[in-house]
Amino acid sequence: MRLATIRLPEGGTRAVRVTGETVTELAYEDVGALLRAGALDRARTAEGPQRAYADVDLAPVVPHPGKILCVGLNYRGHILEMGRELPTAPTVFTKYPEALVGPNDPVLLPPESDQIDWEGELAVVVGSTVRRADPAAARAAIAGYAVLNDVTMRDWQYRTLQWLPGKSFEASTPFGPELVTPDEFTPGPALVTAVDGEEVQRAATDDLVFDPAELIAYLSTILTLRPGDVIATGTPGGVGHARKPARYLTPGQTLTTTVEGLGTLRNPTVAEPVATAATPA
Amino acid sequence: MRLATIRLPEGGTRAVRVTGETVTELAYEDVGALLRAGALDRARTAEGPQRAYADVDLAPVVPHPGKILCVGLNYRGHILEMGRELPTAPTVFTKYPEALVGPNDPVLLPPESDQIDWEGELAVVVGSTVRRADPAAARAAIAGYAVLNDVTMRDWQYRTLQWLPGKSFEASTPFGPELVTPDEFTPGPALVTAVDGEEVQRAATDDLVFDPAELIAYLSTILTLRPGDVIATGTPGGVGHARKPARYLTPGQTLTTTVEGLGTLRNPTVAEPVATAATPA
Repeated sequence: MRLATIRLPEGGTRAVRVTGETVTELAYEDVGALLRAGALDRARTAEGPQRAYADVDLAPVVPHPGKILCVGLNYRGHILEMGRELPTAPTVFTKYPEALVGPNDPVLLPPESDQIDWEGELAVVVGSTVRRADPAAARAAIAGYAVLNDVTMRDWQYRTLQWLPGKSFEASTPFGPELVTPDEFTPGPALVTAVDGEEVQRAATDDLVFDPAELIAYLSTILTLRPGDVIATGTPGGVGHARKPARYLTPGQTLTTTVEGLGTLRNPTVAEPVATAATPA
Repeated sequence: MRLATIRLPEGGTRAVRVTGETVTELAYEDVGALLRAGALDRARTAEGPQRAYADVDLAPVVPHPGKILCVGLNYRGHILEMGRELPTAPTVFTKYPEALVGPNDPVLLPPESDQIDWEGELAVVVGSTVRRADPAAARAAIAGYAVLNDVTMRDWQYRTLQWLPGKSFEASTPFGPELVTPDEFTPGPALVTAVDGEEVQRAATDDLVFDPAELIAYLSTILTLRPGDVIATGTPGGVGHARKPARYLTPGQTLTTTVEGLGTLRNPTVAEPVATAATPA
């Protein structure tokens, strides 16, 4: 099953089931609310008003996750090619819902950064409430998969030891287009990031040091994971900051992020309009 | 004005105004909901059922903040005495609402850590929606102040470069007892942390490199801050991990965290009961 969150012409949002060229409206305001209601199975057969998929405006597939837990340094091939040892624990940091945009929305480039970089990622959405999940419970807690681009302001990421400020700028992180349930997708197919059509990242989404179930087991040791929580599983090689010379996003580009079988995020990059002078400390 | 969130005997929670020995129930389920409704000023005069303060069970003062942004390395005197340079940007990391407990609740010590440490802090609660706040707007966005202990699992904090896993263990972070509005509290009075009555930290809450308004200005450059968001402003010297020999919390202790004028968190430390074997990756 494939689910999405659409913006309604009259305002607000709605969870929908995607079937070919058609979407069927479900009785929840977004996919996160549907998951929190435990309605994933019911969504397979629920009936509702239909719309043409080509006509809908997609919101972030889960617009308001309780948590967006991001993992760094998780692509095995890239770590080994850099001559590093494989990590024994996941590197975990945060992004906030304010950072999310829909799969076709502009990615805002704030005037406070001139080192804005791409990080295509496979995202996992949690479907149940788990704490200290064993491997079987962790697998069962996966509601589905989506695509996310952890767009990163490198200058802000590296101002201090902690990366958060570079990872959570407003309206910078596309997420979607759909939630695809595990019966229709297994990690493995290629993740491909492109800028204006030029491929800049490509990796197999099963080349992870810590796979989705291992991440759920690890993170749920720390705290309770809940329906709608999102785990971004890390990015492979090919980011702009590591290139020589370094390369960053600039206004007027199109950033595309694809996981084969999950779909594509296609986001124009736009200089954020700022009415008043910024006042960073 | 002093506000708190109480747990009702019949279940659920309620925001209250604290006046001496009495609390007055307000029409919001917690102080976060009250702030999100823009009801801070109305709360000064609102009428409602009263209870004896001595009889109520206090929840975390804001039980479900949209964000808990924590700041590290922010006490000027401690940085200088360590021979370090003052930072030019705040170090920012995250804690999730699952970590919060009330001001008199047990602090859970999970079996997965044996390096559990205290970090007494002044917390700031945001009262309005701000982005790129200038200094005046940032000051005006402070709803009030409270006390927080950023209890930290040092072994998990330092497993990788990113601190989050050691900062957000379930039910480890006391927060309260009250929200005290800026007309009744100005940072400056002493922050004191004690373990079984032995003082382990003491600092003036205005000895900050980045004061509350500067933190709101900085953080709101990155993303929108909203009513009920919490900023933990950092801890001074005296943590257990830096002692020789190092010293950590153990079950059966009482951790007290006081900011003079704001009140005291008084939390017994309890080994977390875990029914099944933990399964960290």
